[in-house]
Amino acid sequence: MKGRLYLIPSPLGDNDPAEVLPASTLAKARELKCFVVEEIRTARRFLSRAGLKGHIEELEFHELNEHTDVAEVEAMSELFEKGDVGLISEAGLPAVADPGAALVDLCHRKGLEVVPMVGPSSLMLALMASGLNGQSFAFCGYLPAKTDERRNALKECEKRSRSLHQSQIIIETPYRNDAFFADLLQCLSPHTRLTVAADITLPSQYIVTKSIEEWRRKPASIGKRPCVFIVLA
Amino acid sequence: MKGRLYLIPSPLGDNDPAEVLPASTLAKARELKCFVVEEIRTARRFLSRAGLKGHIEELEFHELNEHTDVAEVEAMSELFEKGDVGLISEAGLPAVADPGAALVDLCHRKGLEVVPMVGPSSLMLALMASGLNGQSFAFCGYLPAKTDERRNALKECEKRSRSLHQSQIIIETPYRNDAFFADLLQCLSPHTRLTVAADITLPSQYIVTKSIEEWRRKPASIGKRPCVFIVLA
Repeated sequence: MKGRLYLIPSPLGDNDPAEVLPASTLAKARELKCFVVEEIRTARRFLSRAGLKGHIEELEFHELNEHTDVAEVEAMSELFEKGDVGLISEAGLPAVADPGAALVDLCHRKGLEVVPMVGPSSLMLALMASGLNGQSFAFCGYLPAKTDERRNALKECEKRSRSLHQSQIIIETPYRNDAFFADLLQCLSPHTRLTVAADITLPSQYIVTKSIEEWRRKPASIGKRPCVFIVLA
Repeated sequence: MKGRLYLIPSPLGDNDPAEVLPASTLAKARELKCFVVEEIRTARRFLSRAGLKGHIEELEFHELNEHTDVAEVEAMSELFEKGDVGLISEAGLPAVADPGAALVDLCHRKGLEVVPMVGPSSLMLALMASGLNGQSFAFCGYLPAKTDERRNALKECEKRSRSLHQSQIIIETPYRNDAFFADLLQCLSPHTRLTVAADITLPSQYIVTKSIEEWRRKPASIGKRPCVFIVLA
């Protein structure tokens, strides 16, 4: 009997894991002995805050991030010979908007069972709270970094939203939030609606939906807080 | 000070709410006195299983579902004069793939605060566990019921998946699962990958990703279990 892969979500910010993770997720995080994580330091801190007692130095950690090559991922199939493995990302759901999906793909190819555990998804929490279309939506990942390409991508996004009546979920690296918000106000049509959802699940949570013309009159000040943007044309 | 709208997720099946909902969600569900729900009967059962003690007959319930018209939704703004309101859907996240978004939209228009609580999303749990592209994905809601239109929509889906390298998440009403799965095997290209994710978070959970040609050799038997399908061309 080979091990299974458990997908263990983590909090979206510096809040208590017990507030945002259900009992089954916390129990599994405390029980596993072998983890594949995006960064070992933050994964250790999460596990210790999740109530892991005593044996954190006995745990086995392997990193899977943008620096991991295909051969290293393939070699991880050996981990399952010894038992169950947990996959943890930096924040939120593993394998959504992060590099973990390569390990899940490996498990399906090897016939290993994959078990997703419940936890916070910044994308879905923002979508639920947006009031925009939750019956049809898309997440397009990060847009291009170069200004012209990013603005073109935004216009494409708005066009797709209009033709498919599809909410478009977008994230940006936090230090670019305010520049990106300015781009949104500049590129999108006055009647397009935009949700700004910052610090989701944290005490400073801010989630507001307005039309672009309303935002232009009174823009948001986001700063470097983690933020999800949703556009519906 | 007007009330806030709390979005309260519920379990995806007949499991214990305490297993799949974090402490903060359970506490809020037990504390609120006024609810907008998709169906009163199932919402009462959920709240009672979530550990609500004693006062279930004192709670106020209002239904919001596909039979609710716009004027009725608008009238719900009065509920917030008396205090906080909870929105609960039949299963999983309110306002995602259900009619609740209309109430959230009302709150944004009235300047009322909306607070999304953490809980299980069948779409995200299936996506995490699929091993398919979690950096770009779309949910297209229900496809048309008529066979020809549905097959055309599926081919469109596959085309969009290929051109945008976008995982396409699809759901079907459970009694049509097997017919829909047969359509998928018939319409899609042999190398397109397909995830079948049934009974997510339940003991009978089944989540497998294979290529269409592999599925054709050994099809899944889904039956009437709630199921999420994900396609990546």
